[in-house]
Amino acid sequence: MERSVWSFHQLIEERLARALESGYGARMYFEMFGQIKKILGQLEKWLEAAGAHATAKSFDPSVYLTLRLAPDQFPFARQVQTACDTAKLAAARLSGKEAPKHADNEQSLEDLRARVKSVLEYLNGFSAADFEGAATRHVTQPRWEGKYMLGADYFLEHALPNFFFHTTHAYALLRHNGVSLGKRDFLGPLSMHAP
Amino acid sequence: MERSVWSFHQLIEERLARALESGYGARMYFEMFGQIKKILGQLEKWLEAAGAHATAKSFDPSVYLTLRLAPDQFPFARQVQTACDTAKLAAARLSGKEAPKHADNEQSLEDLRARVKSVLEYLNGFSAADFEGAATRHVTQPRWEGKYMLGADYFLEHALPNFFFHTTHAYALLRHNGVSLGKRDFLGPLSMHAP
Repeated sequence: MERSVWSFHQLIEERLARALESGYGARMYFEMFGQIKKILGQLEKWLEAAGAHATAKSFDPSVYLTLRLAPDQFPFARQVQTACDTAKLAAARLSGKEAPKHADNEQSLEDLRARVKSVLEYLNGFSAADFEGAATRHVTQPRWEGKYMLGADYFLEHALPNFFFHTTHAYALLRHNGVSLGKRDFLGPLSMHAP
Repeated sequence: MERSVWSFHQLIEERLARALESGYGARMYFEMFGQIKKILGQLEKWLEAAGAHATAKSFDPSVYLTLRLAPDQFPFARQVQTACDTAKLAAARLSGKEAPKHADNEQSLEDLRARVKSVLEYLNGFSAADFEGAATRHVTQPRWEGKYMLGADYFLEHALPNFFFHTTHAYALLRHNGVSLGKRDFLGPLSMHAP
């Protein structure tokens, strides 16, 4: 019995450690990607609102694609492309999968909407189990010249802030150029409960 | 012995469930606030860069405080104040603590830097244990008229996107108005490892 107690204690600790390092982490990443998907869904609505604004004002909607907040910042189209790539590559890198390629050849708001939808479709194919072990995975990319980040650091320090950086710049560019959007359009619906 | 096996099994499941719902969640929130603190630290550097730019160009640095990207968006000062409040209130609400009050009376970039530093100081007082049970905590605020969000939803759907929304708007406003900043100034240093 003494021996059994000790080995069960060990089993508890081992299962806890595994849960901490993989299972729970996997659920956490899955939930974070749920939020990323939600914001991408909102981005698609901003693109729709931009098109409606251009129609109402009788100007070519594709002018949005080249607008910038500063001459040495990405233009609108590349803000949207980079937001999409950040989400897509984060999911791929944290799960050890290959991300689908996109040619960055969007010429219209409709093309950009299709890009967002294609990334949403890709992200919809992930389950929590895909992110098991994500926190300790080694993540790298060509421009890092062989250096790597641990998955947990990569997600928190790189993927998440970059995703919000580019989606917010896309939103801010539209607001700066007359599209009627508000904070609710950024956040989307909230999971509120009645008292 | 049969009985012991069963009760140990139960103990394992209970400890796992507790770990999943509180302990690990607490660590996750603590790490997320680590990232929030990092971005706040970067925001303080952007404010410093804005002051240096104004000095180099011989204009009054306080003009930054009233700049807007759209006439119906918050001006720069309020973007910074709201980023600070979002971080401060998220930590307070998820831990059941009272947040320190700020009077929103900043008149200069230096005042805004002091605001950021004061929130960083407040956040430095938190440990992972403060966020135990955060995911299931009921979070509300006066404007929600009695409705509430669960802590996990509140953090992911509200606090985190709002924090990045306002910090990115502060950054974009400075970039739009000539301050020399780049993505590295937004992200701060990354936890890279040699191959």
